[in-house]
Amino acid sequence: MVAGEEMSGRLEWRINVSNGASKVLEPEQGLVGRVWHKAYSLMIMKIWKFLVNCWKIGVAEPRKFIHCVKVGVALSVVSLFYYMRPLYEGVGGNAMWAIMTVVVVSEYTVGSTIYKSVNRVIATTIAGSIGVGVHWLASHCDRRYQPFVLGASVFVFASTATFSRFIPTVKARFDYGAMIFILTFSLVSISGYRVEELVMMAQNRASTVAIGISLVILVSMLCWPVWAGDHLHNQTINNLDKLANSLEGHVADYFNNQENDKISEEELKKKLQGYKCVLNSKATEESMANFATWEPAHGRFYFGYPWKQYLKIGAAARSCAYCIDSLNSCIDSKLQVPEFLKNHIVDKCTRLSSCCSDVLKELVTSIKTRERQSNIDFLVDKMIFQVEEFQNAIKAVPCEILFQVSTTNENSVDRNREKIENSNQSSLLDVMSLGLVSTLLIEIVGRIEEIAQEVDKLSNMAEFKIKKENKLQEIQPGACNQTKTEGQETMKAIEEV
Amino acid sequence: MVAGEEMSGRLEWRINVSNGASKVLEPEQGLVGRVWHKAYSLMIMKIWKFLVNCWKIGVAEPRKFIHCVKVGVALSVVSLFYYMRPLYEGVGGNAMWAIMTVVVVSEYTVGSTIYKSVNRVIATTIAGSIGVGVHWLASHCDRRYQPFVLGASVFVFASTATFSRFIPTVKARFDYGAMIFILTFSLVSISGYRVEELVMMAQNRASTVAIGISLVILVSMLCWPVWAGDHLHNQTINNLDKLANSLEGHVADYFNNQENDKISEEELKKKLQGYKCVLNSKATEESMANFATWEPAHGRFYFGYPWKQYLKIGAAARSCAYCIDSLNSCIDSKLQVPEFLKNHIVDKCTRLSSCCSDVLKELVTSIKTRERQSNIDFLVDKMIFQVEEFQNAIKAVPCEILFQVSTTNENSVDRNREKIENSNQSSLLDVMSLGLVSTLLIEIVGRIEEIAQEVDKLSNMAEFKIKKENKLQEIQPGACNQTKTEGQETMKAIEEV
Repeated sequence: MVAGEEMSGRLEWRINVSNGASKVLEPEQGLVGRVWHKAYSLMIMKIWKFLVNCWKIGVAEPRKFIHCVKVGVALSVVSLFYYMRPLYEGVGGNAMWAIMTVVVVSEYTVGSTIYKSVNRVIATTIAGSIGVGVHWLASHCDRRYQPFVLGASVFVFASTATFSRFIPTVKARFDYGAMIFILTFSLVSISGYRVEELVMMAQNRASTVAIGISLVILVSMLCWPVWAGDHLHNQTINNLDKLANSLEGHVADYFNNQENDKISEEELKKKLQGYKCVLNSKATEESMANFATWEPAHGRFYFGYPWKQYLKIGAAARSCAYCIDSLNSCIDSKLQVPEFLKNHIVDKCTRLSSCCSDVLKELVTSIKTRERQSNIDFLVDKMIFQVEEFQNAIKAVPCEILFQVSTTNENSVDRNREKIENSNQSSLLDVMSLGLVSTLLIEIVGRIEEIAQEVDKLSNMAEFKIKKENKLQEIQPGACNQTKTEGQETMKAIEEV
Repeated sequence: MVAGEEMSGRLEWRINVSNGASKVLEPEQGLVGRVWHKAYSLMIMKIWKFLVNCWKIGVAEPRKFIHCVKVGVALSVVSLFYYMRPLYEGVGGNAMWAIMTVVVVSEYTVGSTIYKSVNRVIATTIAGSIGVGVHWLASHCDRRYQPFVLGASVFVFASTATFSRFIPTVKARFDYGAMIFILTFSLVSISGYRVEELVMMAQNRASTVAIGISLVILVSMLCWPVWAGDHLHNQTINNLDKLANSLEGHVADYFNNQENDKISEEELKKKLQGYKCVLNSKATEESMANFATWEPAHGRFYFGYPWKQYLKIGAAARSCAYCIDSLNSCIDSKLQVPEFLKNHIVDKCTRLSSCCSDVLKELVTSIKTRERQSNIDFLVDKMIFQVEEFQNAIKAVPCEILFQVSTTNENSVDRNREKIENSNQSSLLDVMSLGLVSTLLIEIVGRIEEIAQEVDKLSNMAEFKIKKENKLQEIQPGACNQTKTEGQETMKAIEEV
């Protein structure tokens, strides 16, 4: 904006000099000039904003920058490789295919690069063989029928391969291969008629593609690799963590706890809305799990790691997020529950939600460290015990109180959304709103249990180490906002149950 | 299985004949044979199952079969085009590019085909021009520096284009173009050194790509076209319809209505679980909306139709589905509510849910016919009025009843999931479970209102026709399970509000 205004200022000044004091011309010229410079500065602004945006994307995930550099390096190397005459003559004019391979196969994660490479190699081999076969068949036919044989074979194979892309299992693993199959088959079966040196061509092609693929795979695996498996692993951890924070934040928000006052409004909003990115995580998780299965052993993950189990954990986490979404909106709807009614259960409710998020955080630790946390079962039991405690607390609310409320707190419910003024609202609705929060919490406990079960299955499948030291003693005091005696009581109660 | 056993039988018989009565050999041979035939028949079985599966996919959506035939035809035509010598000499060896273009650009929907074609043309043009420029620059440099100039330019442009694919706006509209840009630029800037007839090559390339693209677009638009816009439109309609059915089904299920007895168990399950495919619809909807923006006017949809608004409707529908998911699980959890308590609200509750699904179905009709249904506002108002009625019904439940329940129905709550036996469960929990259903229903009403608002915005943006005849009179009797007098009362009540 500053640059634009400066320029426009300079231009006006120049016009004044050349035209002397011609005040008639000035506004007209000035208008055109101003419009032009306005547009110009607006464009500059837009481009600047776009660049700032790009920079932010890169800074948020520097691996994206690194990926771009990697692609650039791989492509430059292959290009110069092609550019050097001696090599050019060795590999032949097909060196173009090396460039194409590099461009097409270079993907962000190692898994997707390998997926595309393997697909490309397998599909090219199969399609090449079939293509040569069809070509041989056609060459033994009468000349007049050759076009029909070739046309029909292209039609049949292309249609079949296209259809295979609609089959879910094929689509997940060989979608790219099917496309390459059609391409190679058409080229081989038709070009065979011209070149007559199909085998020679195939050799050339194979060597160039091999050069391209090996270069790309080496670069993608050795220089700052981005593993799809790591991505899925971290996303699962983050999602569970966000669920824990959101849940705790929402319950604290509902009961106007002081805990939420400690952090800034923006952070609080981020904490509360964290669960929202779990809601639509399915597509990313599925593609990541698919790519991860192609990856070789890396870090703590071996080839054949049960990535599919992450999808189940993801599904359980999503179902939990749906519940938190309902909780979120019922808190947002401002169905006011009388404070003294809240006070009856605030402790238990906060403790329950804190137990829930403890379980989730322990699951996060378990997945993160790939160790069986011995106190997960204990925490789950404690969570279930808290549900019981919570139900008892609700039971302890004397029913007379409800009557009292209905006569004194008549205007307490005010749902703006329905635009209905309702002066003689029953307090039973208040209780019900409280009931919604309570029953949703109980439902959320059930869904967290499901997540715990899926994580347990993962720990069996991936053979998590068993952590030796028993953290039971360390955890009890202070955890779940309980004093030591309360914790011991809980233990006793669990033993009784 | 039958074929396999038959074969295995035949083989054993043959062995018996050739070896006479050599009983020692028989079991060994038989074992190998049996294992082999078992594996063989298992394979046959698997392939057969796979084929049956394929057939089912095709029959469920015959347009997929048609699409495959279309790709086959387009590819055969281009191949034969290339095969004919006269044309071959005219277009040159670059005719390979025509085949490649057909294979790569052929997509299921018209929108994605056009998206890819436009991207391919624009990217090829831009990359070609820049490539020629870089080539010209390099040719004016000292011979020794040429590789560095070319290598550096490939590195810079490839990295930049790769990075641009991470930017959401670019990714949504020009992801494919960025890839083609890198490919063409590398090929042109490097190959220029060899061919020295860049312009000639560019002309050839352009003509072949043009042939390929025009053929594919013609085939995809003229022969049984599959429009991404239609797909999105129908999916939105289906999703809203499924929500309506699921909601009605769940409430009927909760109150053990006879309505659900009319249909078979399988159909009921399908009806109840219908909302589940709405939960994860985001990814499909977004890609469809993206492709739909590329499509020319077709049927009742013009170019520039507000497809983005469908995404908002989809988001509102999903948020409604999240609530139904909570409703589903709270009904599944078998928190038994005493029958007489249910009886107090069963009528109002069923009527409310039926009003909700009426609104949804009317919205479906509105989107389907692209007409403003004049009675949507009426139905929404009626739905809101039913909420009020519903709240009044809850209010009317005398609090003494709760006491009575707590003494008589002590064992009514039995949550298996938490494995807690709780003999002195409070009845307040029963009320709360009822409260959960009620409050969720009220929340669902709010979310349906949001859907209605988004559909209303769509009707403004897409300029839906206004339906002339007033269906108010036709709808009143019988709708929402109301008698005529009740309907009139409702109207009066709404007027008063």
